[in-house]
Parts: sequence; structure tokens; C-alpha cells
Amino acid sequence: MKIVIAPDSFKESLSALGVSNAIEAGFRQVFPDAEYVKVPMADGGEGTVQSMIDATEGYFIDVSVTGPLGEPVMAQYGVLGNQADKPNTAIIEMASASGLHLVPREQRDPRITTSFGTGELIKDALDRGIEHIILGLGGSATNDGGAGMVQALGYQLQDENGQAIPYGGLALKRLHSIDASLVHPKLANCVIEVACDVDNPLCGERGASAIFGPQKGATPAMVEALDQALAHFADVIVESGLDDQRLLAGAGAAGGMGLGVKAFLQGELKPGIEIVMSTVAFADKLNGADLVITGEGRIDGQTAFGKTPMGVLTQAKEKGIPTIGIAGCLGDGAEIMLEKGMLAIFPIIPFLHSIEQILAEAEENVTYTARNIAQSIQLGGQLNG
Amino acid sequence: MKIVIAPDSFKESLSALGVSNAIEAGFRQVFPDAEYVKVPMADGGEGTVQSMIDATEGYFIDVSVTGPLGEPVMAQYGVLGNQADKPNTAIIEMASASGLHLVPREQRDPRITTSFGTGELIKDALDRGIEHIILGLGGSATNDGGAGMVQALGYQLQDENGQAIPYGGLALKRLHSIDASLVHPKLANCVIEVACDVDNPLCGERGASAIFGPQKGATPAMVEALDQALAHFADVIVESGLDDQRLLAGAGAAGGMGLGVKAFLQGELKPGIEIVMSTVAFADKLNGADLVITGEGRIDGQTAFGKTPMGVLTQAKEKGIPTIGIAGCLGDGAEIMLEKGMLAIFPIIPFLHSIEQILAEAEENVTYTARNIAQSIQLGGQLNG
Repeated sequence: MKIVIAPDSFKESLSALGVSNAIEAGFRQVFPDAEYVKVPMADGGEGTVQSMIDATEGYFIDVSVTGPLGEPVMAQYGVLGNQADKPNTAIIEMASASGLHLVPREQRDPRITTSFGTGELIKDALDRGIEHIILGLGGSATNDGGAGMVQALGYQLQDENGQAIPYGGLALKRLHSIDASLVHPKLANCVIEVACDVDNPLCGERGASAIFGPQKGATPAMVEALDQALAHFADVIVESGLDDQRLLAGAGAAGGMGLGVKAFLQGELKPGIEIVMSTVAFADKLNGADLVITGEGRIDGQTAFGKTPMGVLTQAKEKGIPTIGIAGCLGDGAEIMLEKGMLAIFPIIPFLHSIEQILAEAEENVTYTARNIAQSIQLGGQLNG
Repeated sequence: MKIVIAPDSFKESLSALGVSNAIEAGFRQVFPDAEYVKVPMADGGEGTVQSMIDATEGYFIDVSVTGPLGEPVMAQYGVLGNQADKPNTAIIEMASASGLHLVPREQRDPRITTSFGTGELIKDALDRGIEHIILGLGGSATNDGGAGMVQALGYQLQDENGQAIPYGGLALKRLHSIDASLVHPKLANCVIEVACDVDNPLCGERGASAIFGPQKGATPAMVEALDQALAHFADVIVESGLDDQRLLAGAGAAGGMGLGVKAFLQGELKPGIEIVMSTVAFADKLNGADLVITGEGRIDGQTAFGKTPMGVLTQAKEKGIPTIGIAGCLGDGAEIMLEKGMLAIFPIIPFLHSIEQILAEAEENVTYTARNIAQSIQLGGQLNG
């Protein structure tokens, strides 16, 4: 029997690898001789770099970069392993260099925060010969349309006096011209995939500033000013001879980062789960499998919208492989996943402990639950035999 | 496939029948054509009367009796159904007439509480032609050695002046003689089984007064006085020509009720789970079963000591039938049940809701869990097939 174990991480509790190991431990108590293929998964959200490094036996690189407020911060990105016949691949989470968690609450101001540090991570990867970058958006402190990122990669964003404009979304309103003559020479040969699960355009009611600005500290007045600045950025991009991407689904992701990566870096925006599954060659790993176990810290109605268990279920279903879920807990709408074809979803909570204790005991509870499931499966085989 | 469903009640939430129905509902979603045999179970503790009536399609009888403090209370007992070839059987819980819950906390005083009401329930049953009584001890407010009970059944407990002694454990020290001339005429022909899961003797360090007195309101001084009074009761019993039962394992149960039912009523003390399983002919119901599902509100290390899941597991194991448990929650030591041979024990908690919400949602959570288990079993059959 071949069992593919492909869970996401359980947030605040266990990495995807930790969950995978716990599931395997439970199943091995019942089926010691089965073949287990562990694929720590992610969907482009928090924990994606860790999962992908664990899935491919890759490694981290630490880099000191420019933080959202212009101060130095230590950021890191991953380089995937086990990719023998593929180009060197880095996986970068924007939040590591330009994340909202790096800005104290009282200093949050999306008019001045910059994505420069994310550009520095990309630059570091290019300098090391990386030819394929997976960029995870989400959790950003910025609303600068990716301007800081492209500045770090050598684009000169200048005001009407030919001076570099300062960091931040509001300064974009002073942008007059873009000089690409000093762009990093390796950028053109690097394939960039962007994990993006929102479809917001750059501007307007559903744009970056209106939808994501407030959570980054923008007042209504700031939202309006930032929206106009991003629109002006898009205008100047077009005047510079680049394509107009302001209406692209996802252009507004991460403070307009979607626009920046598409217009300047020719990045392809794709659902995070698709990028992850393709990168770890998930479809290949499913070949010959009898059963797939996936999981997530919380499975609910949102899970069906591009989260890891949904992605895993979809590919397993295509190959006719039954899929069972293990969840830290179940939320409203979890039955949607059953309707989508998941056989069963088991919560792991043994008792009404405190949330802290439940998080601390996740590993043993996952193992216990996996053992329960395996016992039931084995029983079914005996009853049928 | 024949599936026997034999859970206990989930205290404060679902009756054993309710749990049974919920389990069946979940399994039927997966195995609509299986044969389901539901046996609402109990172990002699709280809920036993309800479960036995549900298991046999019996009925309740309400009787106004003398409460623990001498005041009238409404009590009830059960008459079993489906017992065609057996004597009419009543099931009586002592707590219904003489329970600690009937005494306000500030009035708890085991020197004066009486088991008279329990005797009135037995008398009512005898008057109706009942020839077999199952008596559940536990939860009593009394420490009177069953004196009140036997008084209600016609035994004259007299002081040295030939006057009836008053109610309560302390008055036993004034007992001088026992007159059996007016005993209920049908008592001798009634078989009495007593569900008793403790082995305490009547007196001493492990006796009724020392072990169970304090929880009924006894101070250390009261414990000593009550212990002496019970010893005197046992002395007078022997002087009356009855056997000396003070050292019997269980004589000290329920404030010495074990002594009273054994010495006066020839009651047999047995583990509650054994009486229940025999009464519902559980062994017969297991014949031809492929799977047994049992359960309890909380499964933990104590479950192995005579609780319903342990009794069910033991009989199922003898017949080689696999057993799975469903628990409202798991407690410390639940793994003992796995070591004893239970295949798996599934908790039903989907999320860290409040205890009130968890109790309120028990039915749907049991059904959901049962469905999960059934899906896994079906999957095992398919993988094996």
C-alpha cells in the first residue's frame, strides 16, 4: 500500500513536515510495511517557504535588507533542493523583507512603506545564479505598487528633475520617468512565478489601496491619495513603453505588488497551491498511491477556495485516489470539502483544553488520530476479506 | 454486515438511546443496507434506568415517597419490557428516592437522612407483582445501613422500649431488636440484584462512614459516631439470627445499603455492568455481529474499571468481534482501553467551543464522527478488494 501524506502546516503549532511525520507515525503503528511518501505542502501563504524547503530538502539564505520603514532587517528566503533537472529555484516570501509584522502598530503608514527589501532578496538570488523565483505575496506592509522592489533591481524611478523619488506609495505621485538602463543583467533570464490568490485590480473600489490599505494603517484620506498615486504609477509605466497591467486580476495584490512584478519582471500570477504542487511535482508523487492524507490547522468552508487540502483533493480525485483530511479543528462549512469528494475529515481535539495546550499537543493528537483512521481502514479490509 | 451499537449515555447531553441513534445515522450514510442492532447501555450508574427502559421498551412508574429528610418527594423507577420469558423486572435507582441531589447543600447531614423512600419504591414494585428487582446504588444521601429501606418493607426496628427508632444513621445506636413479623409477604419471592461497583466493608477505615460520609456532609466526629452506629446495627442483625455481612465486599456501599440489601433482602451484589449486560441479553445480541460500536461521554483510565465500554469490549472480544469507541472526550489514561483491545477511540469535538455548546451539539458531532469511521472502514474494504 502506498500512502501519500500531504498536509499543510498547522499554524502556530506544527510545520507541514511536523504534521506529515505525525501522520506517518500513527499510520505506521497499524501499517508498518506500507510505503509512505511525505510531501509537506503549502498554498502560498504563511509557512510556504518552510514547507517547500522541507519537501525538497532545500536550505535557507539569510540576507540583511531594507525593511518597510527603510531600516535594516534580517530577512530570509529559500533555495529548493532535489531539483536536478530544473533551474536553480528560489522561493521568496515578500513578508520576510516587507511584512506588516515588521512595522510596530503605531508606525504603520502605507504612504511611506517600501517593498525595496523584497527586491533586494530577488537581487541576492539573481547574484547567486538563481534562474527561477517563486514569489509569495501576502502579509505586506506596503502600498507602493512594487516600486521599491524594482528600484532595488536597478530601475531608476525619477521625478521631473531626474532625481530618485523616495520610498513609499505616496511618493509615486511625483514619478515622472523610468530609466531601465541599470537593471540587473540577470533579471531578464529569470522566470518569476507569483503566488497570488486574490483578483483585485490595481485601483478603484476593489483596488489595492481601498481593500488592503486600511489594514496597513491607511485612513480614508490616505486611501484616496494612495489610489491616485498608484494610478499615476500605472500611467508612467505605460508612458515608459511597458504594458498596461492595471486591470490585471491580481495587479492590486500586496499593495499593487501584482502590478510591479507583472509589468517590470514579467512575473506570472498564479494560485499559490498550483505553483506549490507543480514545484514539488505532486502529480508524479501520486502515481500508484492507494490513499492520500492531507490536512490543515483549520478546515472550513474557505478551504475549498485554493487552500492546500482542496488542491491535494483535486489532483487525487483526478487520479481516482481516495483522500482523507486531518484538521486541527473544523470550522463552519467544512462539509463543503466532503461534498467536493473528501472521504472524511477528522478533527484531533481530545478534550476541551485551553487553546495553548491544544496547540502544544498537536503532534501527539495528530498521531493518535492517524492511528485511529488506520485502524478503521485495516478493519474494513478484514471485514471485506 | 451486522453492527451492534451499544454506547452508554453522554452525561448532561445525550441518553444512551440518543447516542445509539446518532451513531446509526452516521453509519447509515455510508452503509445504508447494514443490519443495525442498537442496545442502549449503562453500567449501573446515573442513567441506567433510562437506558434499560430504552433497551427493552419498558416504562416508568412515578411514586410519591419519603425523601432523605423525611419530606415527600416524587421518585420513579422502571419496569422493563421485552422480557417475555422472564419474571416481571423492575429497575430502581436508589438516588431517585434517597439521593444526595434531593438535599440542599446546607441541610446535608448523614446522621438523619433515611433510605426509607427506596424501600417504598421496592414495596410499590412488590405490590404490582414484580418478582425481580435490579437496584442501583450510588448517589445516596444516606448512611443508615439500609435501615430506612427495610423499615419501609415492614421490618420493625425497635429501641429497648419496643418503640420504632427514628430515621437516620445515628439513631441506629439505639437499636435493640428487629421484628420481622410484618415484613412484606412478597419480598421473599423476589430476586434482588444490586448493582454495586465498590468493595468497601461496612465499618472501619474503608467503611461507609469514613469513605462516603464526608461527601454527604459528615464531619470527622460524625464519621466516628456513624461508624459506631453501623457496627451496632450489624451486631443487632446477627443477634436477630441473620447472617453477619459486615465484612462483605460492598457492604459499605451507599452508606451501608450493601449490608441492608444483603442481610435483609438476600440481594446479590454484582458489578453494574454485568447486571445490565445480562438483563439486556447482550451476549445474544452480539451473535453474528461484524463490528461493535460503543461509547461514553468521557473515556479515560477509569473506563477500564467496570464502565460500559469496558463491559462491551470484554464480551465482544470473547466472541472475536472488533470494537470501536466514540467518546464525548478523552481523558488521561484512555490508552488503557486500546491496550485492552479496543481498536480505536474517536473523540467528537470539532472545535474549541464552550462546554455548553459542545454538549448541545453532541448529537450532530456523534453522527459526523460515526460517518467518518464508516467511511474509513468502507475505504479499507475497497483497498483490500
